Amino acid sequence: MKRALTVIHALGLLLVVFSLTYLLPLATAFIYGDSAMMTDFALAIMWTAMAGALMWLATRRFKGELSIRHGYLLVATMWAAMPAFATIPLLMLLPGLSFTDAYFETMSGMTTTGATVLVGLDNLPPAINLWRHELNWIGGLGIIVLAVAVLPLLGVGGRQLFKAETPGPMKDSALTPRIADTARNLWVVYVGITLACVGLLKWAGMSWLDAVCHSFSAMGLGGFSTHDASIGWFDSPLIEFILIVFMLIAVLNFATHFLAWHGRTFKVYLRDAEAVGSLVLILTSCLGIAIFLWWQGVYPEFGVALRHATFNLVSIATSSGYASVDYAQWPMFAPMWMMFLTAIAASSGSTGGGIKMMRTLVLVKQAGREFLNLLHPAVVNPMKIGGQVVPNSIVFSVLGFIFLYFMTLATLTFILLISGLDFISSLTAVLASVNNCGPGLGVVGPASNYQGLSDFQTWVCTFGMLIGRLEIFTLLILFTPAFWRR
Amino acid sequence: MKRALTVIHALGLLLVVFSLTYLLPLATAFIYGDSAMMTDFALAIMWTAMAGALMWLATRRFKGELSIRHGYLLVATMWAAMPAFATIPLLMLLPGLSFTDAYFETMSGMTTTGATVLVGLDNLPPAINLWRHELNWIGGLGIIVLAVAVLPLLGVGGRQLFKAETPGPMKDSALTPRIADTARNLWVVYVGITLACVGLLKWAGMSWLDAVCHSFSAMGLGGFSTHDASIGWFDSPLIEFILIVFMLIAVLNFATHFLAWHGRTFKVYLRDAEAVGSLVLILTSCLGIAIFLWWQGVYPEFGVALRHATFNLVSIATSSGYASVDYAQWPMFAPMWMMFLTAIAASSGSTGGGIKMMRTLVLVKQAGREFLNLLHPAVVNPMKIGGQVVPNSIVFSVLGFIFLYFMTLATLTFILLISGLDFISSLTAVLASVNNCGPGLGVVGPASNYQGLSDFQTWVCTFGMLIGRLEIFTLLILFTPAFWRR
Ligand SMILES: [K+]
Ligand SMILES: [K+]
Repeated sequence: MKRALTVIHALGLLLVVFSLTYLLPLATAFIYGDSAMMTDFALAIMWTAMAGALMWLATRRFKGELSIRHGYLLVATMWAAMPAFATIPLLMLLPGLSFTDAYFETMSGMTTTGATVLVGLDNLPPAINLWRHELNWIGGLGIIVLAVAVLPLLGVGGRQLFKAETPGPMKDSALTPRIADTARNLWVVYVGITLACVGLLKWAGMSWLDAVCHSFSAMGLGGFSTHDASIGWFDSPLIEFILIVFMLIAVLNFATHFLAWHGRTFKVYLRDAEAVGSLVLILTSCLGIAIFLWWQGVYPEFGVALRHATFNLVSIATSSGYASVDYAQWPMFAPMWMMFLTAIAASSGSTGGGIKMMRTLVLVKQAGREFLNLLHPAVVNPMKIGGQVVPNSIVFSVLGFIFLYFMTLATLTFILLISGLDFISSLTAVLASVNNCGPGLGVVGPASNYQGLSDFQTWVCTFGMLIGRLEIFTLLILFTPAFWRR
Repeated sequence: MKRALTVIHALGLLLVVFSLTYLLPLATAFIYGDSAMMTDFALAIMWTAMAGALMWLATRRFKGELSIRHGYLLVATMWAAMPAFATIPLLMLLPGLSFTDAYFETMSGMTTTGATVLVGLDNLPPAINLWRHELNWIGGLGIIVLAVAVLPLLGVGGRQLFKAETPGPMKDSALTPRIADTARNLWVVYVGITLACVGLLKWAGMSWLDAVCHSFSAMGLGGFSTHDASIGWFDSPLIEFILIVFMLIAVLNFATHFLAWHGRTFKVYLRDAEAVGSLVLILTSCLGIAIFLWWQGVYPEFGVALRHATFNLVSIATSSGYASVDYAQWPMFAPMWMMFLTAIAASSGSTGGGIKMMRTLVLVKQAGREFLNLLHPAVVNPMKIGGQVVPNSIVFSVLGFIFLYFMTLATLTFILLISGLDFISSLTAVLASVNNCGPGLGVVGPASNYQGLSDFQTWVCTFGMLIGRLEIFTLLILFTPAFWRR
């Protein structure tokens, strides 16, 4: 109980800081001269800051050092509470919107899932659209900091592997200064790359609003768009190409980007086994799917097949979730392969979702090690990734993660099946939620959205996004009796 | 090369022994006065024995001790070659049958998958039907011996866990006498239980032929039937009940049955963590699905729902694959849950397929251990199952297995998708093949069979049955370069 109050104290402060993020849509409303939206966001700032301040003040007696257990509780409640407050502007603008749908939308934004229950995106006020996209962007930054700086300290995530030996922002040290340091370095890299993206998209023909919004959702691998037709609305190979490049940047570890920028060298990417694995997997898949679509006669011209295969595959594999065509109409192998990539292709420390390439590499190596073990039982084969020995404790934690990941997918899919959803929609809605990808297939396919789900089904997907984003362990550990024992 | 020839020498001898299994259908043909079938099986004996003898004689220079590597090669080639020779009577009887379909049928028989490409089972000659069912029965015995006696020596399979401490047939000793000893003990138990099953099924109203055939397929958890309508043909709750009991017996470890018989005690079942896990999981699922079907209004009477849920769920969960109704018509949650159970519910050392309950228990414990580890990083938690400590090397081999299992499922499903099969049929055909269950859903559902597949798709499923039955590692290891290195 005391532990919960200490966490609420910290959470209150975080909410006050979070209320500052409404300043950007407020400024947008001002630029567009939209006084209704200005009031809307001003009220949202007030409510959020006030609630945060109240929480902070009411629990000030319980202020204290944050232990590892506080860390888990804070991370989970933070990611549940911020989207709840983020619904305020949406609910004020759209009185018909239920809290269920609004919370789905903001959770989808902050977890950078990018699934939407709204239609008529093109007609939303600019400030609201910017707000949705800013959630993608903030969520992406939060995830990078979480994955690179916080989770390894809690012991979750494949990246603790690199704790000891990587120079620069990954160096291990005391909790508080380290988070602050790492976060600042990554923040600078993230903002820098985002600005470059805004400039290029504007140059390629987008309006300023669209350029900013899509830069936000591209960097967060969120996949929100200002148009119901997503990127298909622009029908521009140049815009698609720019977005492909930035999605591929965002799907790599931002700590590696920092090292590359800091050392003025590209060699760090070649030394990052995850980066090499992700890029090789994604790019060969693009080529493969392009050939498949051309062979199946979906696009008689190979160039067209390559364009659509590349954009949509990169979008889904990186867990962005933009669409330029209705790829659910392609022969089933193609979209299913894309959904499979979502689960494994993103690097840890990126804004992507799923198992992460690091864990995939550990699994592949472990299977290979077992074969050697069967043939030479007496020989000890230490696992190496990128030249570094991976200790058995890491291998165990990865394997435990994979099991919980599959159990989560299976459980949520069965729950959606019981609720009456068809199998393909259930399976892909869960995959798209837990991997923070966005569009699934069937009822929740790229040409429709999540509006077709019942309230109950919407909550299941909302939970899926949260548990996926928090790397499963971080959320599930709160439900273990051991966590609450002294 | 020399290694392959040594294995061919041993394989030749095995084929000569295998040719003796045709004596049972030969006797059946004699009883029914079917001279055509008598010639058919006499020729089959001749061809198989001759081929075996030739292989044995031609390679007698390479006779030698069998090492672990010889073991892998022998097991894999044995399970590929015996079904190939078993096609002879089928091909002679049905000239229109392709080798692809005949090999699918006999592989399905020997791996106790029980999927069929034949229609008009009711009109097949009794000798042929007995032959198909005998393959189920022999396959089941072969699998038990493989799992309990051979695979642990090769280092594959969760059961090596029990090598050191279990009394009786599991005691570790030198290779050759041990296999022979264990095999004889298990053989006696297997035959004894089968005879009891034959007697009870005859008493419940089956003809002698049907009683023998269904006892064979129940004990092997094969699921072949002499009727296109499977067990639905009898429409007898008593027969269904008897089969349920024997399927539940066959899904437990036969070494435990041996201990129970040897020590005249039922307590050994309570000490077998797998047996408890399997039975609790299956029986609670029966109740759950019965309630679900009743709630959904599929069967307005709860008694009827319970009858059909129990028989069909036990049949699929144990990987038998009998059907008494077309359960593919039930709301999707029910058949999907049944297919999920197939993958995990069978004990090692049973005739069932899939991951096996032992590995499931290791996974669950490992996930729990990770949670403890996150909260108390300094504390070492040894894993215990059924009171015994599980060494880390076993945990690693289980986790390596799980990864290869999922990769196998994914790869084969994608191959079927590329070949143009729809998603549900692809996924469930692969699940049903690799788990040696039999019927899937969609095109390969319980009301139809595998005849609707193209030749290519049939081969994919045939491969799936073999790789699943050989616990994945045993087959895949032959494709690693390290295996063929000196
Ligand atoms: K996304
Ligand atoms: K079967």
